[in-house]
Amino acid sequence: MKIFVCGFGTVGQGFAEVLASKRGMILDRFGEDAVITGAMDSRTFVCDPNGLDPLALVSRKKTERVVGEDRYSDPRKVLEGADYDVLVEVSPTDVKTGGAGLGNITTALGRGKDVITVNKGPLALKYQELVRLADRNGCMLRFEGSVGGAMPIINLCSGNLMGEKILSIRGIFNGTCNYILSKMDKGQPFDQALKEAQQMGYAETDPTNDIEGYDSACKVAILANAVFGRDVTFDDVKITGITSITEEAVSMAASRNMVIRLIGEVGDSKLEVGPRLIPKGHPLSISGTLNTAQIVTDLAGPVTVSGRGAGRIETASAILSDLMAVMQRRAA
Amino acid sequence: MKIFVCGFGTVGQGFAEVLASKRGMILDRFGEDAVITGAMDSRTFVCDPNGLDPLALVSRKKTERVVGEDRYSDPRKVLEGADYDVLVEVSPTDVKTGGAGLGNITTALGRGKDVITVNKGPLALKYQELVRLADRNGCMLRFEGSVGGAMPIINLCSGNLMGEKILSIRGIFNGTCNYILSKMDKGQPFDQALKEAQQMGYAETDPTNDIEGYDSACKVAILANAVFGRDVTFDDVKITGITSITEEAVSMAASRNMVIRLIGEVGDSKLEVGPRLIPKGHPLSISGTLNTAQIVTDLAGPVTVSGRGAGRIETASAILSDLMAVMQRRAA
Repeated sequence: MKIFVCGFGTVGQGFAEVLASKRGMILDRFGEDAVITGAMDSRTFVCDPNGLDPLALVSRKKTERVVGEDRYSDPRKVLEGADYDVLVEVSPTDVKTGGAGLGNITTALGRGKDVITVNKGPLALKYQELVRLADRNGCMLRFEGSVGGAMPIINLCSGNLMGEKILSIRGIFNGTCNYILSKMDKGQPFDQALKEAQQMGYAETDPTNDIEGYDSACKVAILANAVFGRDVTFDDVKITGITSITEEAVSMAASRNMVIRLIGEVGDSKLEVGPRLIPKGHPLSISGTLNTAQIVTDLAGPVTVSGRGAGRIETASAILSDLMAVMQRRAA
Repeated sequence: MKIFVCGFGTVGQGFAEVLASKRGMILDRFGEDAVITGAMDSRTFVCDPNGLDPLALVSRKKTERVVGEDRYSDPRKVLEGADYDVLVEVSPTDVKTGGAGLGNITTALGRGKDVITVNKGPLALKYQELVRLADRNGCMLRFEGSVGGAMPIINLCSGNLMGEKILSIRGIFNGTCNYILSKMDKGQPFDQALKEAQQMGYAETDPTNDIEGYDSACKVAILANAVFGRDVTFDDVKITGITSITEEAVSMAASRNMVIRLIGEVGDSKLEVGPRLIPKGHPLSISGTLNTAQIVTDLAGPVTVSGRGAGRIETASAILSDLMAVMQRRAA
């Protein structure tokens, strides 16, 4: 199994490390090696059909700031010429245009290569188009890590719950907001909780994408497309962030044995992100940076999952899960 | 796909109803019909290689108290002579001997038939033996519904998380105990909470199996065998029930922002069921009759799931999930 890794930032490096550590397990299970035969960052690339050392790639990226030996002008030419079976697309997300990731995914699918991505932009903008392209070329497009990081949800809905009619999904899809709201439960005002989230490295210097609900909205759009077969984009999501939640609102909720959480809601017609009152003890009332989702189905009723929504190794673990599913299908 | 249903109580009837309602969806997805060609209860059986009407079977069981037209003396003979691809084994569980279910599963696997069961007894007593028999005969043994009902856990660990090293599982595996403990959180004494659970139909007249932790222990033994590759039985589990939890203990926990929950714990060496202190807001702090489990892995960290641990349609939904996995593998 030859893997091309597009994007060699935090997640790309995490994936390379995970692959290095799990190589023996993969070989044991599938009788086949999984090797990186190509890697690309925003300026450079490197290819070797015999396989590259994943840890040497990480090391070069860290010391030399680039992953590759050569610069490229057109990423399509690199991806059209390289030798690989599956593209792992983890370049920086751009939710307005789809960014470089959209072109990379399209190029690989166009060549009949399987694609694994956690890149939210292309999935929140052009999902049905990408799925049709994958179907036409007989290849798989998998993206477990794009929603909720290491929390299983995409493959859970399409696999484990495949006999169910999924009626709705409600969840916490942004760990930064949940951290802030959990701190507000303990009496901190919003500004102070945000500052603490920034100090802890959970929130960025410009926290807009998280606290205005945009990141959650991307994930809600992906779920609408992937689980409910809809054809929506980020712009279709009705969004309210958490910036106007006051200490009074939080303490009023507490007096009714409730907490306020930023909830994404999606169903056949619903597509929203906004603060909601959740009873304490309810599966969606969790505190801290976790992500969680409650999937309501016709037979099973409510099925709730939670897990780490971000982190390099956690996100890489979702990519590994998709990679093993691709290898399993090829072996079948 | 020809199905023989062994056991036609609550779960067997629920499965027949679910199959009737999902027949079109299965045909759409697999281009193949899924029909019941045989059914058996504790005394009678009925077979038809052309398929039986699932709802007519339910109706006969309800009006005539038996599912079949003929009485049998030896269930093995019935299962050896009948025409089916997969056995759905949902007869009453017996955790001391494995009950009729153990013989039924062994007979079907011995004939090279796939088996789907929710029967805890055989899995908590003879798991490795059954898996070896299935492997020798090239067939599948699936049992998603045996732990946590509609909560996905068995197939989540072996499928979605297949690349992970699973370090431990801690969970609430008995909804009756969780209902009682949730009522105690609100100030009710144990006896009153138990009585209410009985009135609601959550607890049986003899609640021993639930409140002494025996039911949870069965599930913990199954997880040890299935997820951790151990070879344990129910008797190996260190068990403490919830009968000695006092109002004082619950209110002491509350004063520390904690709740008491009956937690099953399993890992490479751990195998316990007992009351534990869980912080409020933690995924394992949920209230009500739900089941929940936190799976800790090397890459993903903690992944938590929850769902309805019992109920005829909910349990049937887990059987449907296994059935579709069997059909998918046969189609591959």
